[in-house]
Amino acid sequence: MASQRSQVQPFRVMQMLDRVQRRRRAGRDTIMLCAGQPATGAPSAVLDLAERELRASPLGYTEVVGDRELREIVAGWHSSTYGVTTPADNVIITTGSSGGFVAAFLAVLDHGDTVALSCPGYPAYRNILEAFGARIVDLVCDDSTRFQPTAAMLEALPAADKPRAVIITSPGNPTGTIIDPSELERIARWCDANGAVLISDEDYHGMSFGRELATARQFSDRAVTVGTLSKYFSMTGWRVGWLIVPDELVTPIENLQASLALSPPAISQVAGRAAFSEAAKAELDGYVADYRRVRDVLLEELPKIGLGHFAEPDGGLYLWLDVSSVTDDSEAWCGKLVEEIGVAFAPGIDFDPVHGNGWVRLSLCVSPSDAREACRRLGEYLGR
Amino acid sequence: MASQRSQVQPFRVMQMLDRVQRRRRAGRDTIMLCAGQPATGAPSAVLDLAERELRASPLGYTEVVGDRELREIVAGWHSSTYGVTTPADNVIITTGSSGGFVAAFLAVLDHGDTVALSCPGYPAYRNILEAFGARIVDLVCDDSTRFQPTAAMLEALPAADKPRAVIITSPGNPTGTIIDPSELERIARWCDANGAVLISDEDYHGMSFGRELATARQFSDRAVTVGTLSKYFSMTGWRVGWLIVPDELVTPIENLQASLALSPPAISQVAGRAAFSEAAKAELDGYVADYRRVRDVLLEELPKIGLGHFAEPDGGLYLWLDVSSVTDDSEAWCGKLVEEIGVAFAPGIDFDPVHGNGWVRLSLCVSPSDAREACRRLGEYLGR
Repeated sequence: MASQRSQVQPFRVMQMLDRVQRRRRAGRDTIMLCAGQPATGAPSAVLDLAERELRASPLGYTEVVGDRELREIVAGWHSSTYGVTTPADNVIITTGSSGGFVAAFLAVLDHGDTVALSCPGYPAYRNILEAFGARIVDLVCDDSTRFQPTAAMLEALPAADKPRAVIITSPGNPTGTIIDPSELERIARWCDANGAVLISDEDYHGMSFGRELATARQFSDRAVTVGTLSKYFSMTGWRVGWLIVPDELVTPIENLQASLALSPPAISQVAGRAAFSEAAKAELDGYVADYRRVRDVLLEELPKIGLGHFAEPDGGLYLWLDVSSVTDDSEAWCGKLVEEIGVAFAPGIDFDPVHGNGWVRLSLCVSPSDAREACRRLGEYLGR
Repeated sequence: MASQRSQVQPFRVMQMLDRVQRRRRAGRDTIMLCAGQPATGAPSAVLDLAERELRASPLGYTEVVGDRELREIVAGWHSSTYGVTTPADNVIITTGSSGGFVAAFLAVLDHGDTVALSCPGYPAYRNILEAFGARIVDLVCDDSTRFQPTAAMLEALPAADKPRAVIITSPGNPTGTIIDPSELERIARWCDANGAVLISDEDYHGMSFGRELATARQFSDRAVTVGTLSKYFSMTGWRVGWLIVPDELVTPIENLQASLALSPPAISQVAGRAAFSEAAKAELDGYVADYRRVRDVLLEELPKIGLGHFAEPDGGLYLWLDVSSVTDDSEAWCGKLVEEIGVAFAPGIDFDPVHGNGWVRLSLCVSPSDAREACRRLGEYLGR
């Protein structure tokens, strides 16, 4: 009775996360390097505001496009962070960035339209797009472009693969690499010149280890950008994200969101206003410094155990590691690791249907000592 | 740049709700009879639990299929309410029932599949289904079947209109009428015999004014039922709903939800456990008694001002009112009413693309005195 289109790939990262949570409930120690979420909770200012707002109103539906005050705060934050003009009317609050992707894909793509995606990339894009009947063209990325797509790759596409939309993610998931502003500008210009909508997933913004981060909207006001409170803002389970969209997409997305979601969660939106406060920023920038420390541990320890080929993270939450010297089935291998040494990685096959069986994604959301211990256990397991 | 499929109808009820919220922020008194949401907030037990849980964990992603404890509570509630066996493994927590519809439609329907819907009916079904490329067959309902579809209507469909899924809503939206258990059984049997998936929207369960309410799962374990904390449980903006699904749909829906949503909101799920407590039930049953009082006011007052043709609500939150004697454009008429007399109705065209211009939906989520005052203003406006 299930439809053809429901035969999407399982999201193995989430399966691994569920498995770790079940293990932990059963009291089994596990170092969780699989999750795309901070181990920290929301900033104190958010929790304080949530507490105050719990009884202040009935917490019914907000406006479909989101709490007006939060839209204005996001617009102000985006303007001042990137030096662009971002009207609050073009900011649409969504139920996590997941809700934003669903609405944006439906708003931009008809059944059968072509979309260009980086590979490796975030698996949910592919799964949602397949369920919506899109045709996917992979932009295969490797060390030569620091695992990110380029305008040259788009130029090289045959006419039959010309995309209606191009999705980019910087800092990348699973790679953590950042697209240079000049390359992002070339990609945005190519999209504008070729009638493609650039959808820029900026979920990991706020988390650079030094390299400059640009928003796609610096280079095109026809670009759609996607943001979230889940990553830098450390509010994963609150399910608040946003889209910043061109004028002509505001009403289509509002209409879609009204039927698809009614409105994002009320308490999360109201409390989320405080995530952009100075007090929260101090707390959150501290977490980024922690991720950087974990990255430094991994860059030091992984080569010592013979795993020296990876994407060096410029920011974000992940390190993309080549394990093809030890497995050709990363899903089975990750399953064994969690049972045998209590270390959970995300199987690479989620992110790269072609070469992912030889790769895994490591999360930076652990303590430096846990990262070091995970490397020690893995080295011992591999006999190195 | 917008897709064809994004040209869905606006959801006028939500537009009206946004308009009322903007009016209220501007200090303009408005009697809100348009909203499909209780004016009350979450039960005290839920707010207390939310307060305790805010700092108890990082509130990250829950399991994709939802918080295990909440799934068990929903399963237990469903079993004991209807005297059926409902395994927790078949309960999937969703982001509001909206998230449930999106996942269930994708899990059951391929592009181009036919779906039978009651007309009048909830507009989001139609809008989501059109965005997903489904073909809609209307089951046109009127007084003769108390505005609900019947098995006889399904039997009468021509072969070309044989549906892959049938969606029913009881108590109805916008009609408030309840499908009798014997008729629900006939519909469920017809679906099983004809290879159609019955999707039973049970969002308004818990809210009957006397008539018996059955779940579709009393008559078929191949049915999908949809539930929510938004209506009876008075937790609209918390965005928690659930699906109860046949075994073979659990994994497809889990996989879809992983990519579409990652997980429903964490604090809402954790606090929502308390919505099923005895303390909460006492509070919530009091609200149902209030809705019944408002219904009684409307049944008394509306005929006095010459509006005596309506669906008499058996439960739920609405009264579906024939206003064809005073307008043939309910959207424009509702717009005028809110500006001129400060009374907000939901335009019928949202719910019935054929006859809806002569109908409006009234919500029961007001005080009896506000309901009476709205009728008085309307009578004066109509010169009656």
